[in-house]
Amino acid sequence: MQISVIGSGRASEDVLNLAEELGREIARRGHVLVCGGRGGVMEAACRGAREEGGITVGILPGERRDEANPYVDVVIPTGLGEARNALVVRAGDAVIAVAGGWGTLSEISLAKKMGKPVVGLTSSGGWAEELARRGEIEGAESPEEAVEKAELLAGYR
Amino acid sequence: MQISVIGSGRASEDVLNLAEELGREIARRGHVLVCGGRGGVMEAACRGAREEGGITVGILPGERRDEANPYVDVVIPTGLGEARNALVVRAGDAVIAVAGGWGTLSEISLAKKMGKPVVGLTSSGGWAEELARRGEIEGAESPEEAVEKAELLAGYR
Amino acid sequence: MQISVIGSGRASEDVLNLAEELGREIARRGHVLVCGGRGGVMEAACRGAREEGGITVGILPGERRDEANPYVDVVIPTGLGEARNALVVRAGDAVIAVAGGWGTLSEISLAKKMGKPVVGLTSSGGWAEELARRGEIEGAESPEEAVEKAELLAGYR
Amino acid sequence: MQISVIGSGRASEDVLNLAEELGREIARRGHVLVCGGRGGVMEAACRGAREEGGITVGILPGERRDEANPYVDVVIPTGLGEARNALVVRAGDAVIAVAGGWGTLSEISLAKKMGKPVVGLTSSGGWAEELARRGEIEGAESPEEAVEKAELLAGYR
Repeated sequence: MQISVIGSGRASEDVLNLAEELGREIARRGHVLVCGGRGGVMEAACRGAREEGGITVGILPGERRDEANPYVDVVIPTGLGEARNALVVRAGDAVIAVAGGWGTLSEISLAKKMGKPVVGLTSSGGWAEELARRGEIEGAESPEEAVEKAELLAGYR
Repeated sequence: MQISVIGSGRASEDVLNLAEELGREIARRGHVLVCGGRGGVMEAACRGAREEGGITVGILPGERRDEANPYVDVVIPTGLGEARNALVVRAGDAVIAVAGGWGTLSEISLAKKMGKPVVGLTSSGGWAEELARRGEIEGAESPEEAVEKAELLAGYR
Repeated sequence: MQISVIGSGRASEDVLNLAEELGREIARRGHVLVCGGRGGVMEAACRGAREEGGITVGILPGERRDEANPYVDVVIPTGLGEARNALVVRAGDAVIAVAGGWGTLSEISLAKKMGKPVVGLTSSGGWAEELARRGEIEGAESPEEAVEKAELLAGYR
Repeated sequence: MQISVIGSGRASEDVLNLAEELGREIARRGHVLVCGGRGGVMEAACRGAREEGGITVGILPGERRDEANPYVDVVIPTGLGEARNALVVRAGDAVIAVAGGWGTLSEISLAKKMGKPVVGLTSSGGWAEELARRGEIEGAESPEEAVEKAELLAGYR
């Protein structure tokens, strides 16, 4: 499976720890981690996946490979600006959201519009938590539960 | 000015009437109306603008010009799928939202991420109304007020 | 009809005169002129179309409307970089090429790949002339002939 | 390094053998192979890279992961249609072309426009051979020479 992780480019220590654990869990289960390739939640998730020997993919808004965080294995510098958000969610069999502002909300919305499974971490704040609590997207209380739900909803198991 | 109108592809009669009046107001004030070029709110707004002799632009997700509604003057068939949502809001100096589901929410979010002024019709339901009521985007009670606010926020007057 | 005009961002006086006459002819026949919105051939063609009261559309690579030349009526600032070249040719029922370097060649190739009619001005130099002389695209000796062939090949008459 | 391999979706046995050897050489030298993810030259190159344990990336025009050839590790289903060609070449530090029709020519042109190093196999036919023989792009007589030149031109060694 390819799982897209979306979330804030800047985040608190607690949220970053959640994202890193999420990356580890994705790699442990043998999935490829796809993200926007930048900092914050994206970087923490990539770092976690790398620690467990997973493959990480960063789909960047800009044109330069060096805009990726140092934990990205495969860099896709799209040069598409915000339009790249559609590609980040399209590339995942499921999407997991951690916290998040307007950019993350655009990715959640695009994923829902595409009919992709979307799981939000309920303890992460931001749009991920709010939409999960409202039942607009699937909620998960831990990174482990999030990956399990992503697998189930994507029909992987 | 170019004003992007976003909203549901299917909508109630009341919402369609609001969208048509919005299109008329945009054209009366001499602005170009940009939208996603499909049905529902988009078609009603284009029809309104046409009635007042305005220019309408439809930025389509698909590859074929004939997917546009019959009130679009300039058709841009992008072939980009959902990634075209970023182009719809990018092309406006301001964005006005009418009702709306996930697709509209992705456009509102992308516009906010880009720093564009976004006005939501408070009596239209959907994400436009909800985000306006919460103060996340500017609210307007009528099409006239929406266009006035769009002009002000875009620095047009 | 919508006709896409593609060609060099910088060009000689002779080529610019050809492009301007091409723009005039497109407008005289009531077609919308689509182009990349920048300088050189694009600006000359838009200027010509404007002189005859035609509508001009500029699909820009960047994010800012003010990157368009002053003769563009409808500005689509895509923010897609070079990927916007695909949109420029997609938006035309036919494509007319004037001179042109690598950017223009990419547009000719994309148009051929999409199955669009492509006409090249044989006296304009660059890739347009070369591919027309080789019979890879349709050749035309004058702007008038180019528009006539575009209409015929697109099934407009 | 990431090296983009571009070429015909359908090709002769000889050309496919060249592409497969090219894929092997890219993987042997430790580079990631990026391509359009479909059949022909793309599939042969991916198969070669896989045989040597390399990582392969397929940037697809469509929306579905299952459109990728079976030798792609990381699948990016862009949903962008032909506009994805810009992403294929953008993702490479250098581009190597094997044979090729209009689609490949659009990728060569976009790469040149972006200022990317482009190497063409001189014995492969198509646009790759023609442009290499004309000196418009760098020529290489074998897959090994092509990868060496790509490394040199990209400043990798």
